[in-house]
Amino acid sequence: MRAVDLIEKKKRGGEHTPEELDWLISSYMRGEVPDYQIAAWLMAVWFRGMTSPETAALTMAMVRSGQRLDLSGVAPFVVDKHSTGGVGDKTSLAVVPLVAACGVPVAKMSGRGLGFSGGTLDKLESIPGLTVDLSKERFIEQVRRHGLVIAGQSADLAPADGKLYALRDVTATVDCIPLIASSVMSKKIAAGAHGVVLDVKVGRGAFMKDLASARTLAEEMTRIGRAAGMRTAAVLSSMEQPLGRAVGNALEVREAIETLRGQGPPDFVELCLTVGSEMLLMAGRAGTVEEARSLLQQAIASGTGLAKLREMVQAQDGDPSVIDDPDRLPRARLTELVAAPQDGYLAAIDAEEIGLAAVQMGAGRAVKGQPIDHAVGVVFYAKVGSRLRRGDPICELHLNDSALAEQVRRRVLAACAWSEDRVSPPPLIHGIIRGS
Amino acid sequence: MRAVDLIEKKKRGGEHTPEELDWLISSYMRGEVPDYQIAAWLMAVWFRGMTSPETAALTMAMVRSGQRLDLSGVAPFVVDKHSTGGVGDKTSLAVVPLVAACGVPVAKMSGRGLGFSGGTLDKLESIPGLTVDLSKERFIEQVRRHGLVIAGQSADLAPADGKLYALRDVTATVDCIPLIASSVMSKKIAAGAHGVVLDVKVGRGAFMKDLASARTLAEEMTRIGRAAGMRTAAVLSSMEQPLGRAVGNALEVREAIETLRGQGPPDFVELCLTVGSEMLLMAGRAGTVEEARSLLQQAIASGTGLAKLREMVQAQDGDPSVIDDPDRLPRARLTELVAAPQDGYLAAIDAEEIGLAAVQMGAGRAVKGQPIDHAVGVVFYAKVGSRLRRGDPICELHLNDSALAEQVRRRVLAACAWSEDRVSPPPLIHGIIRGS
Repeated sequence: MRAVDLIEKKKRGGEHTPEELDWLISSYMRGEVPDYQIAAWLMAVWFRGMTSPETAALTMAMVRSGQRLDLSGVAPFVVDKHSTGGVGDKTSLAVVPLVAACGVPVAKMSGRGLGFSGGTLDKLESIPGLTVDLSKERFIEQVRRHGLVIAGQSADLAPADGKLYALRDVTATVDCIPLIASSVMSKKIAAGAHGVVLDVKVGRGAFMKDLASARTLAEEMTRIGRAAGMRTAAVLSSMEQPLGRAVGNALEVREAIETLRGQGPPDFVELCLTVGSEMLLMAGRAGTVEEARSLLQQAIASGTGLAKLREMVQAQDGDPSVIDDPDRLPRARLTELVAAPQDGYLAAIDAEEIGLAAVQMGAGRAVKGQPIDHAVGVVFYAKVGSRLRRGDPICELHLNDSALAEQVRRRVLAACAWSEDRVSPPPLIHGIIRGS
Repeated sequence: MRAVDLIEKKKRGGEHTPEELDWLISSYMRGEVPDYQIAAWLMAVWFRGMTSPETAALTMAMVRSGQRLDLSGVAPFVVDKHSTGGVGDKTSLAVVPLVAACGVPVAKMSGRGLGFSGGTLDKLESIPGLTVDLSKERFIEQVRRHGLVIAGQSADLAPADGKLYALRDVTATVDCIPLIASSVMSKKIAAGAHGVVLDVKVGRGAFMKDLASARTLAEEMTRIGRAAGMRTAAVLSSMEQPLGRAVGNALEVREAIETLRGQGPPDFVELCLTVGSEMLLMAGRAGTVEEARSLLQQAIASGTGLAKLREMVQAQDGDPSVIDDPDRLPRARLTELVAAPQDGYLAAIDAEEIGLAAVQMGAGRAVKGQPIDHAVGVVFYAKVGSRLRRGDPICELHLNDSALAEQVRRRVLAACAWSEDRVSPPPLIHGIIRGS
């Protein structure tokens, strides 16, 4: 085979065989096919797309580029969870302990924040001492002993994804559904869980801006999971406004803790129950959604979810006292209220803009590898649908640099839209796709 | 500027500014934009195309990547000629001396053959001693002293084209009209002539397989020439069957010499008169096509064209005696006639297949840099429209490897189509586009 012939085939709209994709990815990983040929191929894929069988074959080729964890000896059914990324999305921090507290082991590898979207690893690292750099042996052992783990992606798993993603990032080929689907699923399949629930975000603060694209991505990923023998379900959830109240690393950890104490914001609690239910259903721990929700609500009410989070923090060398005293988390020097400039109903809060404002304050990074400030961020007092009077607080900024306050205040205000008429809170869950 | 943003813009169908294209090409040449970003951009261009202003701006960016010859002091009007490549296309070997003999200096840089298509440099090098590696100073001096030169492309002229072409070759982005047009015209503009006549081939033995694409390419190139202040005309000529009778390097040199002696095959003579006339008209040497043709025919009849070829060969260190005694050109050890398998009219001779058969015999190369055999090739006795009886010769193979004879004979026969009904010779000239 020659790479140029495969590029030509895709350019003309042809369908690759599994053998062709295996050859392309393995030759790329051996350095026998150079970046520039893969770059041209990726752009041809952007224009021509890939069929579901092609996408599944690409995913498996990426899985075969590295090791694959074997969790079969750990528990009869280990579940994983993945979000496509959003603003204020601390769902894993609450749902992983809740599901584990219900008796279903959760083994999750996460990523870091980039651009407007936050990352679970960054949030976890605001807990003093906590490490996300676990060896594969320690990762597996923690699932076995504690029933939950959230760690950084191991470089040995689906290394082709890391290499391809870095290339996509600089060749404008990130926004391509088959490439996104194969990237996510190659990592999930290699990480060895028996099932995965995908939280596919849609809206202004998500990578998928419209529901049709999000649904296509969700369907593609569930098909890939099924083809690989992994139970896979997807929740389509709204990311028009920030999820919950907090945006920013330590602020989101605090919100997750409050949620596990039964004091979570309604939209965030609802998403945790929805995603968590799918995880319990998939594992056979519950027979119906109602039963699953009830188990999760008991885990909140009884404090077993919070205890599981404490157990995980301790297992990963973190300071467990923050669970009982969240004031021990990093705190910003300054807080500043942002007040409503008029009477009215809050009609929209542009989640992407809020995410970028948080990046500007230091909570995220514009470029990979930048350090971040765990303390800073925004906490909302109002959500879309809230009725406010002029001067009422919309949110509170947590900053370490007073020079930024005015700029961020204006940016947050510009991200808000107002209506004189009553506005209903937008729907949170757009649908659930259950693969098998 | 960032390369990834320019890739994204083209991917979305945007139009680049001249500044963007200048930045992209100059950054690429400085090594600041890597091959993989250019590869992705080239593929996006393949899908989205480029507007005429973009194509002209890309061309000028490529011209600015290197030196530009200044022929203004050599003569008031120096003309160039370019063919997009075909099978049996030895036009430059005859038309350059003819135009020079009419008093219009010709300065031409040529390429080598690749795949089914032959190259003028390879043909010239079948003349013992002849060199095509001329310094820029020697190139200019030869135009000044002898009024004609055909040399290899100087690496200092439009070096971006060389670098881009090498990348296109391995990323399946060769077949893209704006990229072809800018590649050709950047070299022509940098080579410094005041005008150029483009012979745009169309048909089975050409890179442009249909007339619409060939016309688009021709129009694009004449627009670029005009924008650069260069007189530019294009002849659209048929390349369904091999041009003239001979295919193969020394065999084609011999046919060019015969043509300058007044014994050329009708289709080849007609193309030489058509292309040559445009060159004379452009230079102001003739006022009408009729006048131009008459001048060229006189240059044949009087032998001044042949004398000019002899002068060029001598100036480039070649053995001038081959002009008077073409038997001194390299000759193959074996000749073998290919006979008509049936009575009938020859309805088609697939030029691409004949070109590939010649490559198989050693006359061309499948991969750049391969050595070639100047002696081998095919000479046709029949053309499309000829009436043959079973056993009549279609062509003669000139080979150095007898083991190939049977295979090539079958290949040539398979490239021929037959008809019981009378077949008219196909039109040779599809049109002429005069830019300015």
